[in-house]
Amino acid sequence: MLLPLAMTPTERPTLIEQFRAVRRRTESLAAALSPEDQQLQAYPDASPTKWHRGHTTWFFETFVLAPHGVPPEEPRWGVVFNSYYEAVGARVPRPQRGLLSRPTTAEIGAWRARVDDRVTLLLERAGEDTFLALVPLVRLGIAHEEQHQELILTDLLAAFAANPLQPTYAPLADAGVSALELRFVEHGGGRVALGREQAFAFDNEGPVHEVLLPPFALANRLVTVGEWRSFAADRGYQTPSLWLSDGLAFVRSQALDAPAYTRLVDGEVVVYGLHGERVADPAEPVTHLSLYEADALATWLGGRLPTEAEWELGAAGRDDLRPDTRDFVPRGTDGGWFGSVWQWTRSAYGPYPGYRAAAGAIGEYNGKFMINQAVLRGSSVFTPPGHSRPTYRNFWPPGTRFQATGLRVARDLTRDR
Amino acid sequence: MLLPLAMTPTERPTLIEQFRAVRRRTESLAAALSPEDQQLQAYPDASPTKWHRGHTTWFFETFVLAPHGVPPEEPRWGVVFNSYYEAVGARVPRPQRGLLSRPTTAEIGAWRARVDDRVTLLLERAGEDTFLALVPLVRLGIAHEEQHQELILTDLLAAFAANPLQPTYAPLADAGVSALELRFVEHGGGRVALGREQAFAFDNEGPVHEVLLPPFALANRLVTVGEWRSFAADRGYQTPSLWLSDGLAFVRSQALDAPAYTRLVDGEVVVYGLHGERVADPAEPVTHLSLYEADALATWLGGRLPTEAEWELGAAGRDDLRPDTRDFVPRGTDGGWFGSVWQWTRSAYGPYPGYRAAAGAIGEYNGKFMINQAVLRGSSVFTPPGHSRPTYRNFWPPGTRFQATGLRVARDLTRDR
Amino acid sequence: MLLPLAMTPTERPTLIEQFRAVRRRTESLAAALSPEDQQLQAYPDASPTKWHRGHTTWFFETFVLAPHGVPPEEPRWGVVFNSYYEAVGARVPRPQRGLLSRPTTAEIGAWRARVDDRVTLLLERAGEDTFLALVPLVRLGIAHEEQHQELILTDLLAAFAANPLQPTYAPLADAGVSALELRFVEHGGGRVALGREQAFAFDNEGPVHEVLLPPFALANRLVTVGEWRSFAADRGYQTPSLWLSDGLAFVRSQALDAPAYTRLVDGEVVVYGLHGERVADPAEPVTHLSLYEADALATWLGGRLPTEAEWELGAAGRDDLRPDTRDFVPRGTDGGWFGSVWQWTRSAYGPYPGYRAAAGAIGEYNGKFMINQAVLRGSSVFTPPGHSRPTYRNFWPPGTRFQATGLRVARDLTRDR
Amino acid sequence: MLLPLAMTPTERPTLIEQFRAVRRRTESLAAALSPEDQQLQAYPDASPTKWHRGHTTWFFETFVLAPHGVPPEEPRWGVVFNSYYEAVGARVPRPQRGLLSRPTTAEIGAWRARVDDRVTLLLERAGEDTFLALVPLVRLGIAHEEQHQELILTDLLAAFAANPLQPTYAPLADAGVSALELRFVEHGGGRVALGREQAFAFDNEGPVHEVLLPPFALANRLVTVGEWRSFAADRGYQTPSLWLSDGLAFVRSQALDAPAYTRLVDGEVVVYGLHGERVADPAEPVTHLSLYEADALATWLGGRLPTEAEWELGAAGRDDLRPDTRDFVPRGTDGGWFGSVWQWTRSAYGPYPGYRAAAGAIGEYNGKFMINQAVLRGSSVFTPPGHSRPTYRNFWPPGTRFQATGLRVARDLTRDR
Repeated sequence: MLLPLAMTPTERPTLIEQFRAVRRRTESLAAALSPEDQQLQAYPDASPTKWHRGHTTWFFETFVLAPHGVPPEEPRWGVVFNSYYEAVGARVPRPQRGLLSRPTTAEIGAWRARVDDRVTLLLERAGEDTFLALVPLVRLGIAHEEQHQELILTDLLAAFAANPLQPTYAPLADAGVSALELRFVEHGGGRVALGREQAFAFDNEGPVHEVLLPPFALANRLVTVGEWRSFAADRGYQTPSLWLSDGLAFVRSQALDAPAYTRLVDGEVVVYGLHGERVADPAEPVTHLSLYEADALATWLGGRLPTEAEWELGAAGRDDLRPDTRDFVPRGTDGGWFGSVWQWTRSAYGPYPGYRAAAGAIGEYNGKFMINQAVLRGSSVFTPPGHSRPTYRNFWPPGTRFQATGLRVARDLTRDR
Repeated sequence: MLLPLAMTPTERPTLIEQFRAVRRRTESLAAALSPEDQQLQAYPDASPTKWHRGHTTWFFETFVLAPHGVPPEEPRWGVVFNSYYEAVGARVPRPQRGLLSRPTTAEIGAWRARVDDRVTLLLERAGEDTFLALVPLVRLGIAHEEQHQELILTDLLAAFAANPLQPTYAPLADAGVSALELRFVEHGGGRVALGREQAFAFDNEGPVHEVLLPPFALANRLVTVGEWRSFAADRGYQTPSLWLSDGLAFVRSQALDAPAYTRLVDGEVVVYGLHGERVADPAEPVTHLSLYEADALATWLGGRLPTEAEWELGAAGRDDLRPDTRDFVPRGTDGGWFGSVWQWTRSAYGPYPGYRAAAGAIGEYNGKFMINQAVLRGSSVFTPPGHSRPTYRNFWPPGTRFQATGLRVARDLTRDR
Repeated sequence: MLLPLAMTPTERPTLIEQFRAVRRRTESLAAALSPEDQQLQAYPDASPTKWHRGHTTWFFETFVLAPHGVPPEEPRWGVVFNSYYEAVGARVPRPQRGLLSRPTTAEIGAWRARVDDRVTLLLERAGEDTFLALVPLVRLGIAHEEQHQELILTDLLAAFAANPLQPTYAPLADAGVSALELRFVEHGGGRVALGREQAFAFDNEGPVHEVLLPPFALANRLVTVGEWRSFAADRGYQTPSLWLSDGLAFVRSQALDAPAYTRLVDGEVVVYGLHGERVADPAEPVTHLSLYEADALATWLGGRLPTEAEWELGAAGRDDLRPDTRDFVPRGTDGGWFGSVWQWTRSAYGPYPGYRAAAGAIGEYNGKFMINQAVLRGSSVFTPPGHSRPTYRNFWPPGTRFQATGLRVARDLTRDR
Repeated sequence: MLLPLAMTPTERPTLIEQFRAVRRRTESLAAALSPEDQQLQAYPDASPTKWHRGHTTWFFETFVLAPHGVPPEEPRWGVVFNSYYEAVGARVPRPQRGLLSRPTTAEIGAWRARVDDRVTLLLERAGEDTFLALVPLVRLGIAHEEQHQELILTDLLAAFAANPLQPTYAPLADAGVSALELRFVEHGGGRVALGREQAFAFDNEGPVHEVLLPPFALANRLVTVGEWRSFAADRGYQTPSLWLSDGLAFVRSQALDAPAYTRLVDGEVVVYGLHGERVADPAEPVTHLSLYEADALATWLGGRLPTEAEWELGAAGRDDLRPDTRDFVPRGTDGGWFGSVWQWTRSAYGPYPGYRAAAGAIGEYNGKFMINQAVLRGSSVFTPPGHSRPTYRNFWPPGTRFQATGLRVARDLTRDR
């Protein structure tokens, strides 16, 4: 992990409050869920809510408390809540996380509270040097927990979607979709800087470096449900020339003809979400698409997926304006750069020039995943507020559909030959 | 289902009490389990405790109440709790039962109580003819629920075994194993009757019919842990000539060298059970073996697995003597015919001559499974008291190891050529 | 292997001629095939023609020549041509037999000729005792080679069927189908003897033993293409109540709605065979069915599959009347007991009472396969002349469709309760 | 496909001779192979030699002859020899190419000769405009056939490697390995041009575009067998911190501890190749590594894989110096840039800025594969002479090991923070 180069001094009470706030938010997300709900694991790559609550706590115990003399409360839980840190030791195989009824939901809640107090105490009492050394780790722990907050919601959605009773988690809001008229914004390209190292950033966002971009244009809004419906009606899923070869094999082998949690009923697009089932507004962003579908849809629309550099340039200067998404319905507000759906890019997830993972277990955070995945930019209705920024690099394999994933179309400007 | 030919008149209060007793026992088995525990599904063919509680209730609602004018309380639950009855309608795919957090454990408990009252009321108030028509269905429902009581325990064991914290369900009793000295009891064979149609029996136990048996001998006790250990020490798992061809492929492909929940530690046989982990007594019955291992072990011991006819003849006249198994440790008491471990036979599970499944959904109970499975006889530590008898035909695919399955050795008597 | 108890003295020249005749027939079957054809392996359980030619030769080298002092010509070929004899040593994994371009087709042909001469010489020159010891092994080798002659044809059909050019192997004969009018022949059952030990028989046909049979009736002819077509038209493949549970899963998971090599075109049944593609006559036997389809079809016809004992009783006294099948079209002549299609029975393949496999490698011939398979009786258009008899027990897993497999319907006679 | 922008006029006889030469070379590669050898398909992604011979012929028939009025000789062969062109029509599933015994090897050879004559005639007689239009298609066909020449050899190696008889294809030469002393050559980076559009190039090599490169260093030679042996001896395959996460899962799930066709015997590296088996020289390049192993090995050596841009800059100005590789042993001559082993890069295979695939079937050549693959640069012992250049972009999924794939190490120059 490339830690911030010039760590700005952080006010101690502020950091403590940020820490406690993120911990509270996790508990608040879980509060409406029964112990049974929190036990669900919909597929091998998902995790139960209670596991997310335990794993994020284990993270603070392992990387913040333990190195400062506070041993883990129950050493055997390390095997249970380690996710993928080879350097830390053994762990339960990921597909079996849903089989861990013990520790119970209540035990995890009580443990969380005790760890919160220990971290708070450590931060309050640490000498100045120790505190400065703790800052990046606590910030990483906070950002890490925010990532798991998103997963709590998306993993829950996958589990609820398997239940014919169609459980709901949040009531549907009475909010409209304000769609922008499609427009392409031109960018001149040239020599531009990418990435972020100041303030908090994940190590994969750096080093800051320059790239050369040819001129390009980006859509001012996300691709919509209505556009997807036209694509499907035009036999998009059955037209090989629109697809990457692996994409065609993907949708054929799984017999896919709609995004996840989505079906066409009498020409209407019916979607299931944490709010239950509803007919989607044609103007809202289409979501739960694999990269393959996003790529074919962009091609059908006469464009292409942007590179992550193009996207970052297009998003520059935009605040993380988060629409009200208490019902987790993407509405594409303000062009949908943030807070609606993650946007697939055509960039494979790899290291920026000069990237080097940190030594030790903490170095397993990002680098070892830099293969077989594509970069997504923006953020989604499931992303916690404050967690997104123009330089943020999310990544998933091309066939991923359980995240709120959509797209924004790009175009080449100079294609005159 | 071949219903009892000569239905002996059943005293009404007795049947009602039998019904309520079996229902209470299920709740009592689940009482020590948290909602999280009750949500676990260890593998695709297992089911969560709460699902077993719901499914057995659905059975009474569907096959007892509904045909007599009491509609299901919540029709949508039919999809959730139907197991495999094609004629009844849609159902959740079996591997996804563990994803059904709703209805909750508490909702299922309350529903059970209401259905119990409805069935009781129906039985109390039914006219004589209706009552007589209800008897076989209620008895089937009782036997069916007893089968699921066994599955509650074996499915729980499989789930707990995946947890590195090694949860326990019942304390280990302070009881010794009283092993019989091995002796082979000779049977003259000849023309013998098999099966049962009087009193309650499953349809697969009939029709009663005669078969011809050559002379044979049966061991007076089960094969023991100590004998298995000698087999393993003699490289039994690595000696092809002992194995059925599919059996060799089975243990090789899964790299098996011990029964389920069992490992060799410094020459001692360590087993995990609902009581936790312990060193097994060499004199206790070996269990959690596949048919393949049982067959190889019998061969190594110089014998063979019995046929189901031989076993039934050997067990004739034996009461269902159930040792105290509150800790679910098989102790092989009294030769282990019942209440220790199910005993693999070399008989494929098929229809007795003249067998015909009942019409309608209830006919899906047994007949459609009569392929690709082997018959097991006896009963195990997990079997409810009163559920076993010499004619009882249990059946599982040859690779099954999550049930308490062991073996008793047979020998041919005339092999003098 | 239970060798014949009372081996009738065999005239030496007769045995030698039988040996040479079967060897010639194999070469004659392969003569029309190019080296490329002989290299094909259509799926993991099939074998290339040239491998069959080599394996049958290896069998004589290993079990006849080697024990009498004639070492294998090329020891390294043992690894190539051993099929499944664990006791003999290493072998190429079955799915990779199609990758063995060396030894070449021509090398195998030359080797066959040399081995033929060596076996002939051995038989000619052996002393009387040695000769008598050789007789059962040579007879087994002959029967073994006949089995592989059938596989040469069925494996070739599977490979040719994958080629869109639809190669043909034998011209279609101008022969009609003479269908019998359906009639059920009643049998009184009772105490009957099964099996065969005199003259040549495989070990799995013995020991001869008695069984008790209830009265039953057997159809005088095979189930026809026309009957299957009616079954399909009646939505037989979509009617769960007709199917064994595993059978329904089988046809659903593979999306099957017709036998192998068969499709419905405008209501006509079009079949592909070694003669090419043609429209089947509704009166000819339906073939290339799995046991699952056969069982469902029998149920739909109001009957059931026979047991192997019933079949053997029904076939008793019938000669192996082989119709002319040079085009490998089953015509069901004379009731179709032999020479049309193998007939699935409802009997699992297991040991007869008192069966014990021979010691050593030769004992791996039959016994170790007595699990997870069903017995078929009769013989097919692909079976060599003289290879079938009423006691013959063929066996395949229930999902097998690449053999010429059909059915004959049985009925219970006493179902009056 | 982006065809060359400024097509230099090609002398007609030269093009014809280039065409005929490449066609002759294919036949020459196949000449030593029997029909059986030419039928082999070692795994689903490989193809038989005869299929390669037919497919390359189909390519000229479809894309050169047919558009100019010469219809395919045998239309049904289109289904057989189409590889992946969705726009051209149906095709045999790739894993079944090994089942196509017809057309025979001889028929394919005769067809090749006739197509050669037709193409020659077309090129000789075409008017000037037609000829100019044909040039890029013929050149593409030539380059395409060269690619399949490489595959003929690598697919053959995979098939031969499955044969315990270890067939050989070419005798081992008596040639030494002249290893360079390891040195890192520094490059200043900056603004550099990538790609090629003049003369012949594949469309994926363009458009020519500029990128910014930070300073870096590249090894002057390939990583050697000796270095790999030290990595293995240092428990490299068992050290998680060296591996990409997917790489660790890859080698664990397949239990890999050496490159393909390679094993350690008493500390020596024994490799199997088209020359048979031999002990490798520690100084020769290591080969048949997956990207995962190459990445871990580079990390263990203290470096990293280069990007494709770095590699192209490093290779600039180097001729395609091809060592003598008639025995297909990589010797790493002259630093091994070309003609020894393909070199994995850390660059995902994607479109260059402004890339657009050609319309129609020919556009399926490269673009649709731009996902889930990594770029390899250089060329290997199996690559035809004249087929490689510094801008050439080869691509395979990261788990590929059947190609001759190795690596060259890169280092960051500015890592001073």
